[in-house]
Amino acid sequence: MRNAVGREIPDQLLTGGREVFQGNAYRENAQYTKAGPTVRASVMPRESKVVASIREAILQCGLRDGMTISFHHHFRDGDYIANMVMKEVADLGIRDITIAASSMGAAHDPIAEYIEQGIVTGLQTSGIRGKIGEAVSTGKLKTPAILRTHGGRVRAVECGEVHIDVAFIGAPTSDEYGNASGKGGKSDCGVLSYADVDARHADKVVIITDTLVPFPNQPCSISCVNVDYVVVVDEIGNPAKIASAAARITDNPRDLKIAEKCAGIMKATPYFKDGFSFQTGVGGPSIAVTLFLKKYMQEKGIRMGWIVGGISTPMVDLLKEGYVKYLADTQDFDTGAIASLGVTPGHFEVTCSEYANPMNKGAYVNKLDFVVLAALEIDVHFNVNVITGSDGILRGAPGGHPDTANGAKCTIIVAPLVRGRIPTVCDSVVTVTTPGESVDILVTEYGAAVNPRRRDLMEALDAAGVPHVTIEELRDKAYSMVGVPDPVRFGDRVVAILEARDGTLLDVVREIKPYSFDE
Amino acid sequence: MRNAVGREIPDQLLTGGREVFQGNAYRENAQYTKAGPTVRASVMPRESKVVASIREAILQCGLRDGMTISFHHHFRDGDYIANMVMKEVADLGIRDITIAASSMGAAHDPIAEYIEQGIVTGLQTSGIRGKIGEAVSTGKLKTPAILRTHGGRVRAVECGEVHIDVAFIGAPTSDEYGNASGKGGKSDCGVLSYADVDARHADKVVIITDTLVPFPNQPCSISCVNVDYVVVVDEIGNPAKIASAAARITDNPRDLKIAEKCAGIMKATPYFKDGFSFQTGVGGPSIAVTLFLKKYMQEKGIRMGWIVGGISTPMVDLLKEGYVKYLADTQDFDTGAIASLGVTPGHFEVTCSEYANPMNKGAYVNKLDFVVLAALEIDVHFNVNVITGSDGILRGAPGGHPDTANGAKCTIIVAPLVRGRIPTVCDSVVTVTTPGESVDILVTEYGAAVNPRRRDLMEALDAAGVPHVTIEELRDKAYSMVGVPDPVRFGDRVVAILEARDGTLLDVVREIKPYSFDE
Repeated sequence: MRNAVGREIPDQLLTGGREVFQGNAYRENAQYTKAGPTVRASVMPRESKVVASIREAILQCGLRDGMTISFHHHFRDGDYIANMVMKEVADLGIRDITIAASSMGAAHDPIAEYIEQGIVTGLQTSGIRGKIGEAVSTGKLKTPAILRTHGGRVRAVECGEVHIDVAFIGAPTSDEYGNASGKGGKSDCGVLSYADVDARHADKVVIITDTLVPFPNQPCSISCVNVDYVVVVDEIGNPAKIASAAARITDNPRDLKIAEKCAGIMKATPYFKDGFSFQTGVGGPSIAVTLFLKKYMQEKGIRMGWIVGGISTPMVDLLKEGYVKYLADTQDFDTGAIASLGVTPGHFEVTCSEYANPMNKGAYVNKLDFVVLAALEIDVHFNVNVITGSDGILRGAPGGHPDTANGAKCTIIVAPLVRGRIPTVCDSVVTVTTPGESVDILVTEYGAAVNPRRRDLMEALDAAGVPHVTIEELRDKAYSMVGVPDPVRFGDRVVAILEARDGTLLDVVREIKPYSFDE
Repeated sequence: MRNAVGREIPDQLLTGGREVFQGNAYRENAQYTKAGPTVRASVMPRESKVVASIREAILQCGLRDGMTISFHHHFRDGDYIANMVMKEVADLGIRDITIAASSMGAAHDPIAEYIEQGIVTGLQTSGIRGKIGEAVSTGKLKTPAILRTHGGRVRAVECGEVHIDVAFIGAPTSDEYGNASGKGGKSDCGVLSYADVDARHADKVVIITDTLVPFPNQPCSISCVNVDYVVVVDEIGNPAKIASAAARITDNPRDLKIAEKCAGIMKATPYFKDGFSFQTGVGGPSIAVTLFLKKYMQEKGIRMGWIVGGISTPMVDLLKEGYVKYLADTQDFDTGAIASLGVTPGHFEVTCSEYANPMNKGAYVNKLDFVVLAALEIDVHFNVNVITGSDGILRGAPGGHPDTANGAKCTIIVAPLVRGRIPTVCDSVVTVTTPGESVDILVTEYGAAVNPRRRDLMEALDAAGVPHVTIEELRDKAYSMVGVPDPVRFGDRVVAILEARDGTLLDVVREIKPYSFDE
C-alpha cells in the first residue's frame, strides 16, 4: 500500500495493527492504554542488589532464547556495555535475541558476528552503522530491523509494541540499590535520558557500573525502585570516546556560509523574538548557526528561552553568557557539556519522553520554535533521508530528526548542495526518514528554498529581503554540477523498516543487490 | 476469616482476590504486571494546556458519575484544592465519586457534607480525621472507606487495584505545559512526592496552581508528559497552615525523658554505627530523640548516613552541621524544610514509591536502620493502633508507620504509658494498623520493652546495661494507674477497611454504636 510520502509498503508488513504513514497528525489525540512491566515485589528489608557478574545477572534475570534486551547509547563510540553483555549471552548459548537499543554505533561492530550466527535475530534501534549496517543491508539479520526515532522508541515501549524483557543500563555511578547516575564516576556520560523508558518498562533492569558509590546516589537519573540487579565491572566504557563528538565550531568556509544564511533566515521569521526556543545538532554548519544567532540576538536585544536535545560546549557557553536561559539536556556530546550538567544553573536533564515522545501528553519538541537539522539527501517534496548512504547501505540514524522536525514551528535543513559526486537535493530520496510535511526550509550554500506549504514563511523572507528559490531550482543546480545519480540497485527482500514517529510505516529498506558485471 | 494478627475479617470482604493479612513477608517476591493509564496522544505542535477554570478542566476530562478522583496532602491543613474541586463536582451534579487521596485532614471538613449527600460514596486515604472521620464512623459513607499506608497506596495504584480517572494535583508553581513544582510560588509546600504516582497512573491529570511560571519550570516534580490540563486559580492554599507542624523540640519533661531513653537504647544496638539511617516523625518525643542522638554521635565520633520521610527544621540543622549526609524528603513539615529543599546540598526529594512502596523493586525503607514512631495504643503483642481514638472514632492515619516499621532493622515506638485516663499499653488495640511483627521496642517514661522476637536486641541492651521489662509489665503498670478500659462498643457494619501495606486485610473498623442509657 502506498503511504502519504508516496512509498510502497509491502502488504505483508501490515500485520498486527500496523498501518502505513498517513501524515503527521494521523494519531493526534489517539487513545491508548500504556503497557506495564511484569515485576517482582521487594517487600522485606534488604541491603543490596549487587550480584557478582554480568553472567550472574543474566542468569538471575532468567534471560532465555527469543527474549528482547535493551541498551542505551549515552556512551556513544566508547560503549563497552553492549559487547560485554552480548559476549556473556553468546557464551551461555542463548540464541534468537532481539536487541532493542536506543541507538547503535561504531563501538558495536562485534555484534555483526552474533547476527551472522543467529544469536541476534532482531534489531530495533535508531542508529545503525558500521558492520551492523552492512550485515543488515546484506540480508544477514533474520527479521527486518526496525528503525525508530528517539521519540518513537519511547512511544513503542509505552504502547507495548516493544516489550523489553531485560534492560542492561550502563551507568557511570550507582549505589548498591541501583540509584544510577551519568555523573560522578570514571566514565561519565552526563545524562541517562534514553534509558529512562527502559528502566520504567522493562521487566528486569540491570545496572552495570564501574563506580559503586554509597547509598543514596543522589541526584540520580534511574531510580532504585525500578532496578533488580547491580553489577560492578572494571570499565563500562572508554571515556575518551564517550565525549568524542566534534563540538568545535567549523572553520569550513562552505559550512560557515550555510550557517550564516541559516541564521539570517531565522532572524527574518516571526519566531525570532525574546524567549525563542532552539535545537540543533553538532558537526557541519549546525553549531556555527548559534554563533551567528548570538550576533543577531545582540543586535535585537533578545535572548533564547531554551535549547533542547544533544548538548555541546558552545551551548553551555551561551548559557553561561546569558544568551539562553535553560538547556534541556538529552545527550552530552563533549566533556564541557558533561561537566556543566546539574552544575551550571539552568542546565538540567530531561528524559527522552519529555524530549520527543509523540504520544505522551506533550513533549518539549511540541513547543520548539526552531530546529536546524542535517540531511544526507532531501528531495523536491522536502522528504529527508538520514539513514541510507548513496550506496543504499544503512549508515545513519533518524534520531530526533523526525521528532523535532514535526514539533518545531520552523524546521530548517542545512546541507551542502552536493557532497563529492553526490547531489544532496534530488528528485526522490533513497529512504524517507523525515516526511517533507515536517520540513519548512532548506538552506544550501547556493541558496535557500521554502516548502510551498509555508506561504507565511515565504512572505516573511520576502518582507525581510532574504532571497529564496524553489527546491526544484536547487535540484537542477545540483544535477547540473554532478549529473543525475544512477538509482541505487536493491533486491526484493525488506531488511529494515522505517517507522514514522507515531509507529506507522514510513519506508522500507531493501537488501543491497550484489554487483553483477553482466548488467 | 482470622488473620495473622488475630483479627476476624468478614468473609464478604474477601472478594476480587482480596486476602487476609498473612504476615509481612507473605508477598515477598510476588509477581505482578503494573497497570497503565489510558491516555491520549499529543503528537502535534501545541503551545499551552491552560484551561479557564477548574470547572472547564472537569468538563474536558469527562468526569462523570461513579469515577475516582485523587488529591495529595502536601498542603496539609492549608489545602484549598480538594474543597474547590469538590464544590465544582457538586455544582455540576456529578454523584457517586470515590476520592482516593494520599491523606485527608482538618481542611476537608466540608467534604463530610458531600458524603451525606451521596456525592462522595467511596473514600480511599491514609489520614481520616475531623468531620470526615465522624461521618465514616457513624456509617454515612455508602461503601467502607479503605485506609492504606503511604507505600500501600502507591502499590494499590501500580497494581491496578485503584484506578484514578482524574488526578487533581495542586502545585505551588507550574508552566503552561504542566511541569509542576512544590517551590517557587506563593504557597510553597516543598516536595510533591505523594502526587508522583497519581501523575504517572491517572488517565487524566490536572495541575491546579496559583503561580504560572515560564516554560520550562525546572526542576519540577511532576513532568508535563503526564499532564492534560493546567488551571490557574487565585489561591491553592493557606501558606500559614501548609507549614504548620509543630517542628520545635518539645519541652515537656515526660517527652524528653522518653526521648533520652530512646536515644540511649539506639546507642546500645549494633545499628548505631557510622552511616546509620534514621527516620522519625514530628511532635511528642520524636524530634527530641535527634537531640540526644547528636550527643551520642559526637561521643562516638560517627555521623548519620541519611534520614528519610517527613522533614522538619531540626533535621535540616543536622544536615547543615554535618551530622547527617542526606535528607530524602517525602514531605515538608515547616518553612525551614521547604526553604532547604534543593538548596542545602544533600537535601533532595524522593517519590512516595521510592520512600515506602512495598511492591516495587526496593524502597528506601527496606534499608532503614532505625525508625522512631508514635502510637495511640500498643498491645501486648506489639500491635499498634494509630487510626482510631479511645472512642472508636476514626481520627488518625497509618501514613508511613507500617511501611517504615516493616522496613527498619530497629523499630521503636515512643509513647507515654497513659494519656489522661487512657492506657497506651493494653491487652488488645482497638484497631491494628501496624502488626506487632514489625515492632521491636516500646519506650515509655516508665521503662522499655523489647519484642520477644528480638532476642538479639535484648542481649544488646543487656550487654550495654540498659534496663528493660516485659510489655506485660508495662501494661500492668498502665492498668494499675488508670484501670482497665471498657471496650469500645461498635455496631456490626464495617465502615472502614485497614489494608496492610501489601494489600491484604489487617483489620476492619465498625460503625460506632449509638450510646444508649438502658444498657
